[in-house]
This record gives sequence, structure tokens and C-alpha cells, in this order.
Amino acid sequence: MTRTIVESKSKTVVIGFDEPFCVIGERINPTGRKKLAAELEMDDFSTVEKDAAEQVACGAMILDINSGAVFSNRMEADPRYADNNFVEPMLMKALIERVQAIVDVPLCIDSSVPGALENGLEAAEGRPLLNSVTGEEERMELVLPLVRKYNVPVVAISNDDTGISEDPEIRFAVAKKIVERAADFGIPAHDIVVDPLVMPIGAMATAGKQVFALVRRLRDELGVNTTCGASNVSFGLPNRHGINAAFLPMAITAGMTSAIMNPVRPQEMNAIRAANLLMNNDPHGMAWIQANREPTPEGEAPAGARGAREGRRRRRG
Amino acid sequence: MTRTIVESKSKTVVIGFDEPFCVIGERINPTGRKKLAAELEMDDFSTVEKDAAEQVACGAMILDINSGAVFSNRMEADPRYADNNFVEPMLMKALIERVQAIVDVPLCIDSSVPGALENGLEAAEGRPLLNSVTGEEERMELVLPLVRKYNVPVVAISNDDTGISEDPEIRFAVAKKIVERAADFGIPAHDIVVDPLVMPIGAMATAGKQVFALVRRLRDELGVNTTCGASNVSFGLPNRHGINAAFLPMAITAGMTSAIMNPVRPQEMNAIRAANLLMNNDPHGMAWIQANREPTPEGEAPAGARGAREGRRRRRG
Repeated sequence: MTRTIVESKSKTVVIGFDEPFCVIGERINPTGRKKLAAELEMDDFSTVEKDAAEQVACGAMILDINSGAVFSNRMEADPRYADNNFVEPMLMKALIERVQAIVDVPLCIDSSVPGALENGLEAAEGRPLLNSVTGEEERMELVLPLVRKYNVPVVAISNDDTGISEDPEIRFAVAKKIVERAADFGIPAHDIVVDPLVMPIGAMATAGKQVFALVRRLRDELGVNTTCGASNVSFGLPNRHGINAAFLPMAITAGMTSAIMNPVRPQEMNAIRAANLLMNNDPHGMAWIQANREPTPEGEAPAGARGAREGRRRRRG
Repeated sequence: MTRTIVESKSKTVVIGFDEPFCVIGERINPTGRKKLAAELEMDDFSTVEKDAAEQVACGAMILDINSGAVFSNRMEADPRYADNNFVEPMLMKALIERVQAIVDVPLCIDSSVPGALENGLEAAEGRPLLNSVTGEEERMELVLPLVRKYNVPVVAISNDDTGISEDPEIRFAVAKKIVERAADFGIPAHDIVVDPLVMPIGAMATAGKQVFALVRRLRDELGVNTTCGASNVSFGLPNRHGINAAFLPMAITAGMTSAIMNPVRPQEMNAIRAANLLMNNDPHGMAWIQANREPTPEGEAPAGARGAREGRRRRRG
């Protein structure tokens, strides 16, 4: 049985087919968050610390730490601050140290800069998840030795030197190539978490069916765990949370075992809790009952009133 | 490709793997609805008519008509009114006539009384769905000739003379037996809609996984459409609508093609719309966009405000 072990100093998270779905919090990511990026330029980590605590409180089991920034306020004095390769390694170290001081969940070290990945691996306690390798030759040659050296699991994204294919056969073949190349480095398949790439359903109507079929194949044929940027599927459509909250249970049914997502959204998180319950990955329904005893943030009736209403309906069998 | 055709006088509904999920409205059912049963005793069809119109307005594609009642107010004068075999045939005829006068969707004739099924088949216009046959010998011998005679599709429930098995292998075997027996009567598999029986997850922790596996097998090996009493899965647990709203997309991913359910619940119905979209059974996302443009009944922000919020998030990719 495929089990991907991710650890902090004190906590172990197992990603696996018979485990609760693994929620990887995506919020600590200055890419496209201008305010956060501006704070980081000023050595202000208050939002990072707040986001770390909040995501864990909402149920994130792992926190993604993305260092994707340059420091525009320092570029004039020193042009190296315009270069990700210069900024990200030191920023990654600082982010990880700050987050580890606040929360005790395992981390996911997320950067396209190899120096940032290595600094992250040095700074992170335990066994972090590395994010990411792709099927690009250069990327595999840079990242897989790090994965081997630090003995960590890695996210493998199904694109390669030809880009992101719309053909799921090709995305499967890319994933297979990465798994095989990793094996050449002595990295086992259970340390590869494949991201099959979820396309926006608004741009590609087959995107959902495609990813469900792909996840099932990745699981059955390669025996790997899987992850995705879940919210991408609803890009450009109204009521994105409604789409995401159906997509996640559907992906879980197909065999998806983790997602990089915003855990602060109650609708998606409760859909995942329901899916864990329905997949028999919530012993005695404890997590479901715990989370659904209190009034939900959507303003639903409290459990007592709801129970009374249901009492009538139940009798209809 | 399996297509089950259900028709009213003027409307055709196709249940199939590449069709939008078929919602069969369950509300017209005096079993366990004391107030409705009391009204029917008094020849009062106002709730029936209201429920018919409301369910169709909420998106029901077929209406289930269950005649399960006896008339306690008339028993003293005539003891035959204590007998379902006496009451249901005339009640079924009356229910169908009333409902057909109000709405134009196809009907599902639901009774355990053969005379009520036959009266329903006589009264219903078009090609109704018959509900139900089981794997019980007596039931098959009574119902399958009616299915053949009226050339209608039928719901086949996976229990037999030994009862409801907790073993999914046995429930599959019962479904297979019914399909084979139906074939002996000249009834094709595409006119059998199997109900694999959804157990409450609170009583049987494997109930969800079991039904997903069973639905996939029924589809792959027998090529039949499937249905279920969807709300049964959440019996006895808090926030049942939250569980149902995850269960339905999960069942759809596994291959379930219809459910007998309460279409008046917006949470479940929107989950089904999202699943249709994600399974590429909502051309151009029209149904999703249509339903999610306006403020939702849960009190969410209107599309405009939501769109503005999303605008910020989208940039994060």
C-alpha cells in the first residue's frame, strides 16, 4: 500500500489511499498576493504567521511555503534583488523559520529556484515534501539529486519540455517517465506525489472527466499518490466554491489523495470531511460529527434545530 | 451506450452515462408523511399538487408517485380501507391524474401493490418508470410481465428472498439475476435501472465505498443504469445535507445515473449541477451558470460581489 510519509519535528502525516485526504495549505505564497509580497520586502512576516496559524486551525495538515518573490524596493540599491535566484533562497529560509516557530505541521517547500529548494531542505525540520519536479530534463537533473540526498518525498508535475499537454495520455506518460527516472536515483514510487494538472473546466469541458480517469490510472498502474491545485478547475466560472466542493469529493472517489488548496474555505473543507467519511477514512465519523455539531459558518441552523427538522424526515426512510 | 427512455405525454428524459444526472423527486409519498396521508384520506390533493409543481420548479426531471397508504378514517365503515391492496390501486390512479394535470414531466409509479402498479401504468401517459421489482421470486413473476406488457423501464432493487445482504457481492449477484430473468421476458438491460441499496454510513462505515464499487461494476459488467434513495446514506448523522451533497457527486463519479431524492434541497441540487458540469454533461456550463448567477438560497453573496472577490483570487493562479 502506497504511503508517503511527511514529517515535521513532532508530527507525521501519511498521504495514502486509506488515509484521510491530505489538505496542503496554499496561502503562504507571495505569487500574485501583492500585499504579502510588499510585506515580505519590508521583512514583515505578520501575515505569514497569521496565515500559518489560521490554516492549521482550519484543518491544513501540511503547509506549502512558496518563496516566489523579488524585492522591488531593493532593486535600485542592489539589482540582484530583481533576481529570483538571489531572493528566493534567503526568503525560503526566513519563511520556514518563521512558520516553524508558529505551527508544528510538516511543510511543503515550493519554489522553481533550486537554491531555494536546497535552503528549504536545510531549514525544515523533519521530512518535508519538496514541490516540485517536472518531466523537464533539466529540472529532473537538478531536483531528483536533492530528493535523493535529503530522502524526502516530491511533487511531480505532469509537464515536460514540450509544455503542458491537453492529452491525458501524454500527461500519464510524463508522470511515468518521472517515476522511472526517480527510480534510477533510488527514489521509490511511494515518495512521488503526482500532480496530473487540473485544467479549468470553463476552458476545457472534458477537464474533470480527464483528471478523474488520470488519477485512477496513476493509482492503479503507477501506485502513486496524487495532488492538485484544486481551485484551478473552477477558474472563470461563477460560484467557484460550489464547483470546488463537488470536484474534491469526486477526485477523492477517483483516488486523489491530497490537494494544495485554501483550507480557510469551510465549504470545500466540509466537502472533504464528508468524502473522508464516505470513503471510510473517518473512524466512527468522529471528525465529521466534531465539525458539524456547531453552527456552520454558512449560517446554517445549529445541530439541535437541524436534528429536529431531520427527525421528521427520517421517518420516511 | 445504455439509454433508459422515460416519457410523459410531451417530455422525454434519457437516463444514461453521458446524460445529466436524473433527479427523481421523492416528495409525493404518504409513507411516513402523516399530514399528507391524512389529506389523501379526505380526498385533498392540494399538497400533492403543490409538491408536484415545486419539485419540477426545483429541477426534478421525473416525479415518483408513491401510493403507500391505507385510509384509517374509512376503516370502520368498510374494513377494506385497512388493506393496501384495496386502497393503493385507486389512490395511485387519482394521484397520477392529479399530477399529470399540473406538470408535464414523466412519472415513476411506486408501489408494492401489483394492482397499484397496473393502475398506474394504465393512468400514466407516455412511458413511465415502474418502481419496483426485486430479486424475490414472487415479485419478479408479478412485476416483470407488467414491464413486458406495457414496455416500460423498471427499477430493480438488489434484495431477494433472503433479504438485504450486507455483502456487495450478493447484491451484485441479485442485480444480475434480475437482469437475466428480465431478459427471459424479452426485457433489455437498458430498461433495468438497478438500485444497489445504499446503507446508512453511520451504521456501516464501508457503505459509501461499497456502493461506489458496486455502481462501477453494475455499469461495467451489466451495462445498466443505476438509482438510489440518496438520503439514506446520511441517516442518523448531523448535517445530513452536507453528507448527501458530497455523496451524490461521488456516486456520479462512480457511474450512478439517477437518484430518488428531495429536489427542493438547494445544497444537494447544486452539488449535482456541479457534478454534471465536471462530468461534461452540462454543455457550455449553461445550467451551472444559470443556477449560480443569482444569490443562492444559503445566503451567499450575489454573483457580482462574488465575482469581484474572485477577481483578486484568480490572479494567484
